[in-house]
Amino acid sequence: MKLGDGVEQAIHSVAMLSGLSEGGVLSAAALAEFHGVSTSYLLKHLQALSGGGILHTVPGPKGGYRLARPAEKITLLDIVLAVEGPAPAFRCNEIRQRGPNPAPDRFFAKPCNISAAMLKAERVYRAELAKTTIADLGAELAEIDDGTIAARSCAFLELHERRTAR
Amino acid sequence: MKLGDGVEQAIHSVAMLSGLSEGGVLSAAALAEFHGVSTSYLLKHLQALSGGGILHTVPGPKGGYRLARPAEKITLLDIVLAVEGPAPAFRCNEIRQRGPNPAPDRFFAKPCNISAAMLKAERVYRAELAKTTIADLGAELAEIDDGTIAARSCAFLELHERRTAR
Repeated sequence: MKLGDGVEQAIHSVAMLSGLSEGGVLSAAALAEFHGVSTSYLLKHLQALSGGGILHTVPGPKGGYRLARPAEKITLLDIVLAVEGPAPAFRCNEIRQRGPNPAPDRFFAKPCNISAAMLKAERVYRAELAKTTIADLGAELAEIDDGTIAARSCAFLELHERRTAR
Repeated sequence: MKLGDGVEQAIHSVAMLSGLSEGGVLSAAALAEFHGVSTSYLLKHLQALSGGGILHTVPGPKGGYRLARPAEKITLLDIVLAVEGPAPAFRCNEIRQRGPNPAPDRFFAKPCNISAAMLKAERVYRAELAKTTIADLGAELAEIDDGTIAARSCAFLELHERRTAR
């Protein structure tokens, strides 16, 4: 089972954007610089987050990204589905229906029980991801922070945040 | 999140092999024919299952595959890990440590909480997959079978099963 590298970058970017002041945006280049990743690669994931309704894109030379809804309403599941797509990890190709002398159609009215068991585990995985919000992660980080991490983010936002009309 | 097509083929193959009589084996070609899939592609997954201790390989021209342990002791998780490898789907590249003016090392002694939340969801997924054995799947199938599915498998095994010394 594989998740693309984009998931880590997308979650960190959304977390960073949750620190913006009202009406502020960050460019893809600033988010890429802060996380030490390729701008062009990150851009693809920011666009997926925007398409998934998690980020709002402000166009133009002074534009950038901000959260489309509060950090309390953005879960890890929302981000994973936006970046990786909604399809289940397990794809049933109905190989039970292939091969010589296949069983009659009536046995295939219900999903294959192998597929059903695999998809049940995915539902459990998704439900677990849906329990954690970006706000939760920020609160956890604040607990271990003596001010150093917050100061680093604030200093970066001070330099790079763009103020736009909301 | 993606699982390869090999997972479906591997689970169906292990389920088929659970119907062999004592000392019997099936060739990769027979398993591929029964499931209507490519032999060379299936072979790769059968070898992974063998490497993972799920199948036993009997070498030679009359050889083939059989279960290395009872179907009651083979879970969906065992098969997924054998075919896809043991690495978690989420890979933490520690991007929190990159970028300009990074935080001091003491903040990185514990895993990133984003990674921790992602891996917690994977543990839940794996625990769910570990609840279902190949024997469970066989019992479920028997419940909906009026004899047709069993007869199809038996007729195929009758033709293709190879008897070897155990």
